[in-house]
Amino acid sequence: MIGQNTIKFIKSLNLKKNRRLNKKVILEGYRLIVESIRSGTKIDYIVINENFQKELLNIKEFENQNIKSANKSNFNKISNTTNSQGIIAIADVKKYFNQTLEDIKKEKIIILDGIQDPGNLGTILRTCVWYGIKSIILTSNSIDPFNLKCIRSGMGAHFYLSNIVQDNHINVLKFLKNNYKTIYIADMKGSNLEKIKSNTNWALILGSEAHGVNDDFKQFKHITINKIGQLESLNVSVAAGIIINKLINNY
Amino acid sequence: MIGQNTIKFIKSLNLKKNRRLNKKVILEGYRLIVESIRSGTKIDYIVINENFQKELLNIKEFENQNIKSANKSNFNKISNTTNSQGIIAIADVKKYFNQTLEDIKKEKIIILDGIQDPGNLGTILRTCVWYGIKSIILTSNSIDPFNLKCIRSGMGAHFYLSNIVQDNHINVLKFLKNNYKTIYIADMKGSNLEKIKSNTNWALILGSEAHGVNDDFKQFKHITINKIGQLESLNVSVAAGIIINKLINNY
Repeated sequence: MIGQNTIKFIKSLNLKKNRRLNKKVILEGYRLIVESIRSGTKIDYIVINENFQKELLNIKEFENQNIKSANKSNFNKISNTTNSQGIIAIADVKKYFNQTLEDIKKEKIIILDGIQDPGNLGTILRTCVWYGIKSIILTSNSIDPFNLKCIRSGMGAHFYLSNIVQDNHINVLKFLKNNYKTIYIADMKGSNLEKIKSNTNWALILGSEAHGVNDDFKQFKHITINKIGQLESLNVSVAAGIIINKLINNY
Repeated sequence: MIGQNTIKFIKSLNLKKNRRLNKKVILEGYRLIVESIRSGTKIDYIVINENFQKELLNIKEFENQNIKSANKSNFNKISNTTNSQGIIAIADVKKYFNQTLEDIKKEKIIILDGIQDPGNLGTILRTCVWYGIKSIILTSNSIDPFNLKCIRSGMGAHFYLSNIVQDNHINVLKFLKNNYKTIYIADMKGSNLEKIKSNTNWALILGSEAHGVNDDFKQFKHITINKIGQLESLNVSVAAGIIINKLINNY
Protein backbone atom coordinates (compact mmCIF):
# COMPACT_ATOMS: atom_id res chain seq x y z
CA MET A 1 0.00 0.00 0.00
CA ILE A 2 1.22 3.51 -0.72
CA GLY A 3 1.65 5.96 2.16
CA GLN A 4 0.89 9.64 2.56
CA ASN A 5 4.39 10.72 1.47
CA THR A 6 4.03 8.91 -1.82
CA ILE A 7 0.60 10.43 -2.36
CA LYS A 8 1.98 13.87 -1.62
CA PHE A 9 4.91 13.32 -3.99
CA ILE A 10 2.72 12.08 -6.86
CA LYS A 11 0.31 15.00 -6.44
CA SER A 12 3.25 17.43 -6.52
CA LEU A 13 4.01 16.21 -10.07
CA ASN A 14 0.86 17.94 -11.29
CA LEU A 15 2.98 21.11 -11.32
CA LYS A 16 5.54 21.73 -14.05
CA LYS A 17 8.18 23.03 -11.62
CA ASN A 18 8.04 19.82 -9.58
CA ARG A 19 8.22 17.65 -12.70
CA ARG A 20 11.37 19.58 -13.77
CA LEU A 21 12.87 19.45 -10.28
CA ASN A 22 12.34 15.71 -9.81
CA LYS A 23 12.63 14.78 -13.49
CA LYS A 24 9.57 12.56 -13.11
CA VAL A 25 6.13 12.52 -14.73
CA ILE A 26 2.81 10.82 -14.06
CA LEU A 27 1.45 8.33 -16.60
CA GLU A 28 -2.21 7.43 -16.11
CA GLY A 29 -4.00 4.69 -18.02
CA TYR A 30 -3.14 1.12 -19.02
CA ARG A 31 -2.39 1.57 -22.71
CA LEU A 32 -0.17 4.59 -22.09
CA ILE A 33 1.82 2.77 -19.41
CA VAL A 34 2.29 -0.37 -21.54
CA GLU A 35 3.41 1.74 -24.52
CA SER A 36 5.82 3.72 -22.33
CA ILE A 37 7.41 0.56 -20.93
CA ARG A 38 7.75 -0.80 -24.48
CA SER A 39 9.56 2.36 -25.53
CA GLY A 40 12.22 1.69 -22.86
CA THR A 41 11.11 4.39 -20.44
CA LYS A 42 12.26 3.76 -16.87
CA ILE A 43 9.28 3.33 -14.54
CA ASP A 44 10.00 4.01 -10.85
CA TYR A 45 6.81 2.33 -9.69
CA ILE A 46 3.24 1.60 -10.67
CA VAL A 47 0.21 2.20 -8.44
CA ILE A 48 -2.99 0.23 -8.97
CA ASN A 49 -6.24 0.63 -7.09
CA GLU A 50 -8.20 -2.19 -5.50
CA ASN A 51 -10.58 -2.50 -8.45
CA PHE A 52 -7.91 -2.75 -11.14
CA GLN A 53 -8.17 -6.00 -13.13
CA LYS A 54 -4.94 -7.68 -12.05
CA GLU A 55 -5.01 -10.15 -14.99
CA LEU A 56 -4.02 -7.21 -17.20
CA LEU A 57 -0.62 -7.26 -15.51
CA ASN A 58 0.11 -10.75 -16.87
CA ILE A 59 2.15 -9.51 -19.83
CA LYS A 60 5.90 -9.30 -20.13
CA GLU A 61 5.90 -5.48 -19.86
CA PHE A 62 4.95 -5.75 -16.18
CA GLU A 63 7.59 -8.35 -15.22
CA ASN A 64 10.18 -6.85 -12.83
CA GLN A 65 8.11 -3.70 -12.31
CA ASN A 66 7.59 -2.35 -8.81
CA ILE A 67 3.80 -2.50 -8.33
CA LYS A 68 2.13 -0.92 -5.30
CA SER A 69 -1.54 -0.84 -4.43
CA ALA A 70 -3.78 1.91 -3.10
CA ASN A 71 -7.25 1.86 -1.63
CA LYS A 72 -9.99 3.71 -3.46
CA SER A 73 -9.74 6.86 -1.39
CA ASN A 74 -5.94 7.15 -1.77
CA PHE A 75 -6.07 6.31 -5.46
CA ASN A 76 -8.62 9.06 -6.06
CA LYS A 77 -6.19 11.54 -4.51
CA ILE A 78 -3.54 10.81 -7.16
CA SER A 79 -5.81 10.16 -10.16
CA ASN A 80 -6.40 12.93 -12.70
CA THR A 81 -9.07 11.33 -14.89
CA THR A 82 -12.80 11.16 -14.31
CA ASN A 83 -13.25 7.51 -15.29
CA SER A 84 -9.91 6.22 -14.11
CA GLN A 85 -8.81 2.73 -15.17
CA GLY A 86 -7.14 2.45 -11.76
CA ILE A 87 -3.50 2.42 -12.87
CA ILE A 88 -0.84 5.13 -12.61
CA ALA A 89 2.91 4.97 -13.15
CA ILE A 90 5.69 7.34 -12.15
CA ALA A 91 8.22 7.59 -14.97
CA ASP A 92 11.79 8.83 -14.81
CA VAL A 93 12.25 11.21 -17.72
CA LYS A 94 15.62 12.75 -16.87
CA LYS A 95 16.69 11.86 -20.41
CA TYR A 96 14.44 14.69 -21.64
CA PHE A 97 14.83 17.13 -18.79
CA ASN A 98 18.64 17.24 -19.07
CA GLN A 99 18.60 18.05 -22.81
CA THR A 100 19.38 21.34 -24.51
CA LEU A 101 19.22 22.42 -28.15
CA GLU A 102 22.89 21.40 -28.50
CA ASP A 103 21.98 17.75 -27.95
CA ILE A 104 19.73 17.57 -30.99
CA LYS A 105 20.99 15.61 -34.01
CA LYS A 106 20.70 17.63 -37.21
CA GLU A 107 17.88 15.62 -38.75
CA LYS A 108 14.30 16.41 -39.78
CA ILE A 109 12.77 18.41 -36.98
CA ILE A 110 9.46 19.97 -35.93
CA ILE A 111 9.29 23.27 -34.02
CA LEU A 112 6.04 24.04 -32.20
CA ASP A 113 5.66 27.76 -31.54
CA GLY A 114 3.04 28.77 -29.01
CA ILE A 115 0.95 25.58 -29.22
CA GLN A 116 -1.31 25.68 -26.15
CA ASP A 117 -3.82 22.89 -26.71
CA PRO A 118 -2.61 19.67 -25.03
CA GLY A 119 -4.70 17.47 -27.36
CA ASN A 120 -3.16 19.04 -30.45
CA LEU A 121 0.34 18.77 -29.03
CA GLY A 122 -0.02 15.09 -28.14
CA THR A 123 -1.53 14.38 -31.55
CA ILE A 124 1.39 16.08 -33.32
CA LEU A 125 3.90 14.03 -31.32
CA ARG A 126 2.08 10.85 -32.42
CA THR A 127 2.36 11.98 -36.05
CA CYS A 128 6.10 12.69 -35.62
CA VAL A 129 6.70 9.21 -34.26
CA TRP A 130 4.66 7.64 -37.08
CA TYR A 131 6.91 9.35 -39.62
CA GLY A 132 10.15 8.56 -37.80
CA ILE A 133 10.90 12.14 -36.77
CA LYS A 134 13.18 12.01 -33.73
CA SER A 135 13.27 15.55 -32.32
CA ILE A 136 10.80 18.24 -31.30
CA ILE A 137 11.51 21.78 -30.17
CA LEU A 138 8.89 23.83 -28.33
CA THR A 139 9.15 27.57 -27.79
CA SER A 140 8.79 28.78 -24.20
CA ASN A 141 5.26 30.08 -24.86
CA SER A 142 4.06 26.56 -25.75
CA ILE A 143 2.39 24.30 -23.21
CA ASP A 144 4.65 21.97 -21.20
CA PRO A 145 4.77 18.73 -23.26
CA PHE A 146 4.94 16.74 -20.00
CA ASN A 147 1.67 18.24 -18.81
CA LEU A 148 -0.65 15.35 -17.87
CA LYS A 149 -3.11 16.00 -20.69
CA CYS A 150 -0.32 16.21 -23.28
CA ILE A 151 1.08 12.92 -22.13
CA ARG A 152 -2.34 11.29 -22.27
CA SER A 153 -3.09 12.57 -25.76
CA GLY A 154 0.42 11.56 -26.89
CA MET A 155 -0.43 7.94 -26.03
CA GLY A 156 3.22 7.03 -25.49
CA ALA A 157 4.61 8.98 -28.46
CA HIS A 158 6.74 11.20 -26.19
CA PHE A 159 8.93 8.28 -25.21
CA TYR A 160 9.73 7.25 -28.77
CA LEU A 161 11.28 10.66 -29.43
CA SER A 162 15.01 11.21 -28.87
CA ASN A 163 14.71 14.90 -28.01
CA ILE A 164 11.95 17.10 -26.64
CA VAL A 165 13.50 20.48 -25.89
CA GLN A 166 11.77 23.68 -24.80
CA ASP A 167 13.64 27.00 -25.15
CA ASN A 168 12.99 30.66 -25.97
CA HIS A 169 12.50 32.11 -29.48
CA ILE A 170 15.92 33.73 -29.64
CA ASN A 171 17.80 30.52 -28.88
CA VAL A 172 15.58 28.46 -31.17
CA LEU A 173 16.09 30.95 -34.00
CA LYS A 174 19.88 30.88 -33.55
CA PHE A 175 19.87 27.06 -33.45
CA LEU A 176 17.84 26.82 -36.65
CA LYS A 177 19.94 29.36 -38.56
CA ASN A 178 23.19 27.67 -37.53
CA ASN A 179 22.08 24.16 -38.34
CA TYR A 180 19.41 24.04 -41.04
CA LYS A 181 19.46 25.16 -44.66
CA THR A 182 15.80 24.35 -45.32
CA ILE A 183 13.36 25.90 -42.87
CA TYR A 184 9.63 26.02 -43.53
CA ILE A 185 6.81 27.73 -41.71
CA ALA A 186 3.22 26.56 -42.15
CA ASP A 187 1.17 29.62 -43.05
CA MET A 188 -2.09 30.66 -44.65
CA LYS A 189 -0.23 32.56 -47.39
CA GLY A 190 2.75 30.83 -48.94
CA SER A 191 3.96 28.47 -51.64
CA ASN A 192 1.65 25.60 -52.49
CA LEU A 193 2.72 22.60 -50.41
CA GLU A 194 2.11 20.26 -53.33
CA LYS A 195 4.88 22.00 -55.32
CA ILE A 196 7.54 21.88 -52.58
CA LYS A 197 10.55 19.64 -53.22
CA SER A 198 12.30 19.20 -49.91
CA ASN A 199 15.82 18.17 -48.98
CA THR A 200 16.60 15.39 -46.57
CA ASN A 201 17.04 17.53 -43.50
CA TRP A 202 14.44 20.19 -43.01
CA ALA A 203 12.92 22.07 -40.10
CA LEU A 204 9.17 22.78 -40.02
CA ILE A 205 7.76 25.48 -37.73
CA LEU A 206 4.07 25.30 -36.76
CA GLY A 207 2.34 28.12 -34.88
CA SER A 208 -0.91 28.17 -32.94
CA GLU A 209 -4.24 28.32 -34.79
CA ALA A 210 -5.07 31.65 -33.18
CA HIS A 211 -1.74 33.47 -33.44
CA GLY A 212 0.39 31.79 -36.14
CA VAL A 213 4.17 31.86 -35.69
CA ASN A 214 6.31 34.49 -34.00
CA ASP A 215 7.49 37.35 -36.24
CA ASP A 216 11.10 36.24 -35.72
CA PHE A 217 10.32 33.10 -37.73
CA LYS A 218 8.58 34.81 -40.63
CA GLN A 219 11.85 35.13 -42.59
CA PHE A 220 11.68 31.42 -43.47
CA LYS A 221 9.85 29.82 -46.40
CA HIS A 222 6.06 29.97 -46.02
CA ILE A 223 4.19 26.91 -47.20
CA THR A 224 0.42 26.58 -47.54
CA ILE A 225 -1.99 23.70 -47.84
CA ASN A 226 -4.25 24.01 -50.88
CA LYS A 227 -7.69 25.23 -49.79
CA ILE A 228 -10.78 24.51 -51.85
CA GLY A 229 -13.70 25.25 -49.51
CA GLN A 230 -14.98 28.38 -47.82
CA LEU A 231 -13.80 28.16 -44.24
CA GLU A 232 -10.20 28.87 -43.08
CA SER A 233 -10.36 26.20 -40.51
CA LEU A 234 -7.80 23.45 -40.63
CA ASN A 235 -6.82 22.12 -37.20
CA VAL A 236 -3.10 22.59 -36.48
CA SER A 237 -2.47 18.89 -35.84
CA VAL A 238 -4.21 17.99 -39.12
CA ALA A 239 -2.15 20.64 -40.95
CA ALA A 240 1.00 19.20 -39.35
CA GLY A 241 0.07 15.71 -40.56
CA ILE A 242 -0.58 16.81 -44.15
CA ILE A 243 2.67 18.83 -44.38
CA ILE A 244 4.85 16.19 -42.71
CA ASN A 245 3.41 13.49 -45.00
CA LYS A 246 4.38 15.62 -48.03
CA LEU A 247 7.88 16.49 -46.78
CA ILE A 248 8.64 12.89 -45.82
CA ASN A 249 7.26 11.24 -48.96
CA ASN A 250 8.49 14.09 -51.20
CA TYR A 251 6.28 12.95 -54.07
CA MET B 1 -34.32 38.94 -20.13
CA ILE B 2 -34.96 35.24 -20.72
CA GLY B 3 -37.58 33.46 -18.64
CA GLN B 4 -37.72 30.05 -17.02
CA ASN B 5 -39.43 28.43 -20.03
CA THR B 6 -36.61 29.50 -22.32
CA ILE B 7 -34.02 28.24 -19.85
CA LYS B 8 -35.84 24.92 -19.62
CA PHE B 9 -36.07 24.67 -23.41
CA ILE B 10 -32.36 25.46 -23.96
CA LYS B 11 -31.30 22.94 -21.31
CA SER B 12 -33.49 20.29 -22.96
CA LEU B 13 -31.32 20.62 -26.10
CA ASN B 14 -28.45 18.97 -24.25
CA LEU B 15 -30.19 15.70 -25.11
CA LYS B 16 -30.00 14.24 -28.61
CA LYS B 17 -33.69 13.26 -28.63
CA ASN B 18 -34.76 16.83 -27.90
CA ARG B 19 -32.44 18.23 -30.56
CA ARG B 20 -33.99 15.85 -33.10
CA LEU B 21 -37.54 16.58 -31.93
CA ASN B 22 -37.16 20.38 -32.07
CA LYS B 23 -34.60 20.45 -34.88
CA LYS B 24 -32.58 22.99 -32.90
CA VAL B 25 -29.06 23.00 -31.47
CA ILE B 26 -27.10 25.11 -29.00
CA LEU B 27 -24.10 27.12 -30.22
CA GLU B 28 -21.86 28.43 -27.45
CA GLY B 29 -19.00 30.88 -28.01
CA TYR B 30 -18.54 34.04 -30.06
CA ARG B 31 -16.43 32.74 -32.94
CA LEU B 32 -18.68 29.71 -33.46
CA ILE B 33 -21.80 31.88 -33.55
CA VAL B 34 -20.29 34.41 -35.97
CA GLU B 35 -19.11 31.62 -38.26
CA SER B 36 -22.51 29.92 -38.14
CA ILE B 37 -24.33 33.15 -39.08
CA ARG B 38 -21.87 33.67 -41.95
CA SER B 39 -22.63 30.20 -43.24
CA GLY B 40 -26.31 31.17 -43.57
CA THR B 41 -27.56 29.17 -40.58
CA LYS B 42 -30.86 30.45 -39.23
CA ILE B 43 -30.49 31.66 -35.63
CA ASP B 44 -33.71 31.74 -33.60
CA TYR B 45 -32.20 33.93 -30.89
CA ILE B 46 -28.98 34.76 -29.10
CA VAL B 47 -28.59 34.94 -25.32
CA ILE B 48 -25.82 37.06 -23.78
CA ASN B 49 -25.00 37.38 -20.12
CA GLU B 50 -24.54 40.66 -18.27
CA ASN B 51 -20.75 40.55 -18.54
CA PHE B 52 -20.60 39.95 -22.29
CA GLN B 53 -18.68 42.71 -24.13
CA LYS B 54 -21.52 44.26 -26.12
CA GLU B 55 -19.11 46.03 -28.53
CA LEU B 56 -18.45 42.60 -30.06
CA LEU B 57 -22.01 42.69 -31.40
CA ASN B 58 -21.21 45.72 -33.59
CA ILE B 59 -20.57 43.68 -36.72
CA LYS B 60 -22.95 43.04 -39.59
CA GLU B 61 -23.51 39.40 -38.59
CA PHE B 62 -25.49 40.56 -35.55
CA GLU B 63 -27.75 43.03 -37.37
CA ASN B 64 -31.38 41.85 -37.36
CA GLN B 65 -30.64 39.10 -34.84
CA ASN B 66 -32.94 38.58 -31.89
CA ILE B 67 -30.67 39.19 -28.88
CA LYS B 68 -31.87 38.47 -25.33
CA SER B 69 -29.99 38.93 -22.11
CA ALA B 70 -29.69 36.76 -19.02
CA ASN B 71 -28.38 37.47 -15.54
CA LYS B 72 -25.35 35.52 -14.36
CA SER B 73 -27.32 32.89 -12.51
CA ASN B 74 -29.66 32.17 -15.43
CA PHE B 75 -26.81 32.18 -17.93
CA ASN B 76 -24.91 29.63 -15.89
CA LYS B 77 -27.94 27.33 -16.10
CA ILE B 78 -27.75 27.21 -19.91
CA SER B 79 -23.97 27.42 -20.37
CA ASN B 80 -21.98 24.24 -20.99
CA THR B 81 -18.43 25.56 -20.84
CA THR B 82 -16.27 26.22 -17.80
CA ASN B 83 -14.91 29.60 -18.89
CA SER B 84 -17.93 30.79 -20.83
CA GLN B 85 -17.58 33.84 -23.08
CA GLY B 86 -21.18 34.68 -22.13
CA ILE B 87 -22.85 34.12 -25.49
CA ILE B 88 -25.12 31.30 -26.66
CA ALA B 89 -27.27 30.97 -29.77
CA ILE B 90 -30.11 28.63 -30.59
CA ALA B 91 -29.84 27.54 -34.22
CA ASP B 92 -32.50 26.03 -36.43
CA VAL B 93 -30.94 23.03 -38.16
CA LYS B 94 -34.01 21.41 -39.69
CA LYS B 95 -32.11 21.39 -43.00
CA TYR B 96 -29.93 18.60 -41.56
CA PHE B 97 -32.50 16.80 -39.44
CA ASN B 98 -34.90 16.27 -42.35
CA GLN B 99 -32.25 14.70 -44.58
CA THR B 100 -31.84 11.05 -45.54
CA LEU B 101 -29.22 9.23 -47.59
CA GLU B 102 -31.39 9.81 -50.68
CA ASP B 103 -30.82 13.57 -50.46
CA ILE B 104 -27.06 13.29 -50.88
CA LYS B 105 -25.57 14.42 -54.19
CA LYS B 106 -23.23 11.81 -55.65
CA GLU B 107 -19.99 13.69 -55.05
CA LYS B 108 -16.87 13.03 -52.97
CA ILE B 109 -18.04 11.84 -49.58
CA ILE B 110 -16.68 10.85 -46.17
CA ILE B 111 -18.26 8.08 -44.09
CA LEU B 112 -17.43 8.03 -40.38
CA ASP B 113 -17.98 4.61 -38.85
CA GLY B 114 -18.14 4.42 -35.07
CA ILE B 115 -16.24 7.67 -34.39
CA GLN B 116 -16.93 8.44 -30.73
CA ASP B 117 -14.56 11.28 -29.88
CA PRO B 118 -16.30 14.65 -30.34
CA GLY B 119 -12.97 16.48 -30.85
CA ASN B 120 -11.94 14.13 -33.64
CA LEU B 121 -15.34 14.37 -35.30
CA GLY B 122 -15.40 18.18 -35.26
CA THR B 123 -11.81 18.28 -36.55
CA ILE B 124 -12.69 15.96 -39.45
CA LEU B 125 -15.67 18.15 -40.41
CA ARG B 126 -13.33 21.17 -40.50
CA THR B 127 -10.99 19.27 -42.84
CA CYS B 128 -13.92 18.32 -45.10
CA VAL B 129 -15.00 21.95 -45.40
CA TRP B 130 -11.41 23.04 -46.11
CA TYR B 131 -11.28 20.62 -49.03
CA GLY B 132 -14.72 21.48 -50.38
CA ILE B 133 -16.32 18.14 -49.46
CA LYS B 134 -20.08 18.71 -49.14
CA SER B 135 -21.47 15.58 -47.50
CA ILE B 136 -20.78 13.41 -44.47
CA ILE B 137 -22.41 10.14 -43.48
CA LEU B 138 -22.15 8.80 -39.94
CA THR B 139 -23.07 5.27 -38.96
CA SER B 140 -25.54 4.91 -36.08
CA ASN B 141 -22.77 3.83 -33.68
CA SER B 142 -20.97 7.16 -34.14
CA ILE B 143 -21.47 10.06 -31.77
CA ASP B 144 -24.25 12.56 -32.60
CA PRO B 145 -22.54 15.24 -34.74
CA PHE B 146 -24.82 17.86 -33.16
CA ASN B 147 -23.59 16.98 -29.69
CA LEU B 148 -22.41 20.21 -28.02
CA LYS B 149 -18.75 19.20 -27.94
CA CYS B 150 -18.80 18.16 -31.62
CA ILE B 151 -20.30 21.50 -32.60
CA ARG B 152 -17.69 23.36 -30.56
CA SER B 153 -14.77 21.44 -32.01
CA GLY B 154 -16.26 21.85 -35.52
CA MET B 155 -15.96 25.64 -35.13
CA GLY B 156 -18.76 26.27 -37.62
CA ALA B 157 -17.74 23.61 -40.15
CA HIS B 158 -21.06 21.75 -39.71
CA PHE B 159 -22.99 24.59 -41.30
CA TYR B 160 -20.85 24.74 -44.44
CA LEU B 161 -21.75 21.14 -45.23
CA SER B 162 -24.76 20.37 -47.45
CA ASN B 163 -25.52 17.01 -45.87
CA ILE B 164 -24.84 15.41 -42.50
CA VAL B 165 -26.76 12.14 -42.40
CA GLN B 166 -26.66 9.43 -39.74
CA ASP B 167 -28.01 5.96 -40.59
CA ASN B 168 -27.33 2.29 -39.87
CA HIS B 169 -24.59 0.17 -41.50
CA ILE B 170 -26.96 -1.76 -43.72
CA ASN B 171 -28.49 1.35 -45.27
CA VAL B 172 -25.11 3.06 -45.63
CA LEU B 173 -23.65 -0.03 -47.32
CA LYS B 174 -26.57 -0.22 -49.77
CA PHE B 175 -26.28 3.51 -50.53
CA LEU B 176 -22.54 3.25 -51.21
CA LYS B 177 -22.84 0.17 -53.43
CA ASN B 178 -25.64 1.74 -55.47
CA ASN B 179 -23.97 5.09 -55.97
CA TYR B 180 -20.17 4.86 -55.84
CA LYS B 181 -17.68 3.00 -58.01
CA THR B 182 -14.61 3.99 -55.96
CA ILE B 183 -14.89 3.23 -52.27
CA TYR B 184 -11.86 3.33 -49.96
CA ILE B 185 -11.41 2.33 -46.37
CA ALA B 186 -8.54 3.71 -44.30
CA ASP B 187 -6.76 0.75 -42.77
CA MET B 188 -3.46 -0.32 -41.22
CA LYS B 189 -2.95 -2.93 -43.95
CA GLY B 190 -3.69 -1.85 -47.49
CA SER B 191 -2.35 -0.26 -50.66
CA ASN B 192 0.12 2.57 -50.17
CA LEU B 193 -1.85 5.82 -50.22
CA GLU B 194 0.92 7.53 -52.20
CA LYS B 195 0.30 5.14 -55.13
CA ILE B 196 -3.50 5.61 -55.28
CA LYS B 197 -4.88 7.36 -58.36
CA SER B 198 -8.43 8.31 -57.55
CA ASN B 199 -11.42 9.19 -59.73
CA THR B 200 -13.43 12.34 -59.30
CA ASN B 201 -16.17 10.86 -57.14
CA TRP B 202 -15.00 8.65 -54.37
CA ALA B 203 -16.23 7.60 -50.96
CA LEU B 204 -13.79 7.28 -48.04
CA ILE B 205 -14.73 5.28 -44.92
CA LEU B 206 -12.91 6.00 -41.67
CA GLY B 207 -13.35 3.84 -38.55
CA SER B 208 -12.54 4.53 -34.94
CA GLU B 209 -8.93 4.29 -33.71
CA ALA B 210 -9.83 1.48 -31.34
CA HIS B 211 -12.10 -0.66 -33.52
CA GLY B 212 -11.46 0.20 -37.18
CA VAL B 213 -14.35 -0.14 -39.62
CA ASN B 214 -17.29 -2.55 -39.47
CA ASP B 215 -16.74 -5.91 -41.18
CA ASP B 216 -19.48 -5.04 -43.69
CA PHE B 217 -17.21 -2.38 -45.14
CA LYS B 218 -14.07 -4.50 -45.39
CA GLN B 219 -14.93 -5.54 -48.98
CA PHE B 220 -13.82 -2.10 -50.22
CA LYS B 221 -10.29 -1.00 -51.20
CA HIS B 222 -7.99 -0.72 -48.17
CA ILE B 223 -5.57 2.19 -48.25
CA THR B 224 -2.71 2.78 -45.83
CA ILE B 225 -0.58 5.75 -44.88
CA ASN B 226 3.13 5.01 -45.18
CA LYS B 227 4.57 4.35 -41.71
CA ILE B 228 8.25 4.93 -40.99
CA GLY B 229 8.45 4.99 -37.18
CA GLN B 230 7.82 2.42 -34.48
CA LEU B 231 4.44 3.29 -33.02
CA GLU B 232 1.08 2.52 -34.69
CA SER B 233 -0.41 5.69 -33.49
CA LEU B 234 -1.82 8.09 -36.03
CA ASN B 235 -4.82 10.04 -34.76
CA VAL B 236 -7.94 9.38 -36.87
CA SER B 237 -8.48 13.06 -37.70
CA VAL B 238 -4.84 13.38 -38.80
CA ALA B 239 -5.17 10.22 -40.91
CA ALA B 240 -8.35 11.66 -42.44
CA GLY B 241 -6.51 14.88 -43.34
CA ILE B 242 -3.57 13.10 -44.98
CA ILE B 243 -5.81 10.79 -47.03
CA ILE B 244 -8.26 13.51 -48.10
CA ASN B 245 -5.36 15.77 -49.14
CA LYS B 246 -4.05 12.97 -51.36
CA LEU B 247 -7.42 12.05 -52.90
CA ILE B 248 -8.29 15.69 -53.59
CA ASN B 249 -4.91 16.75 -55.02
CA ASN B 250 -4.41 13.37 -56.74
CA TYR B 251 -0.70 14.07 -57.29
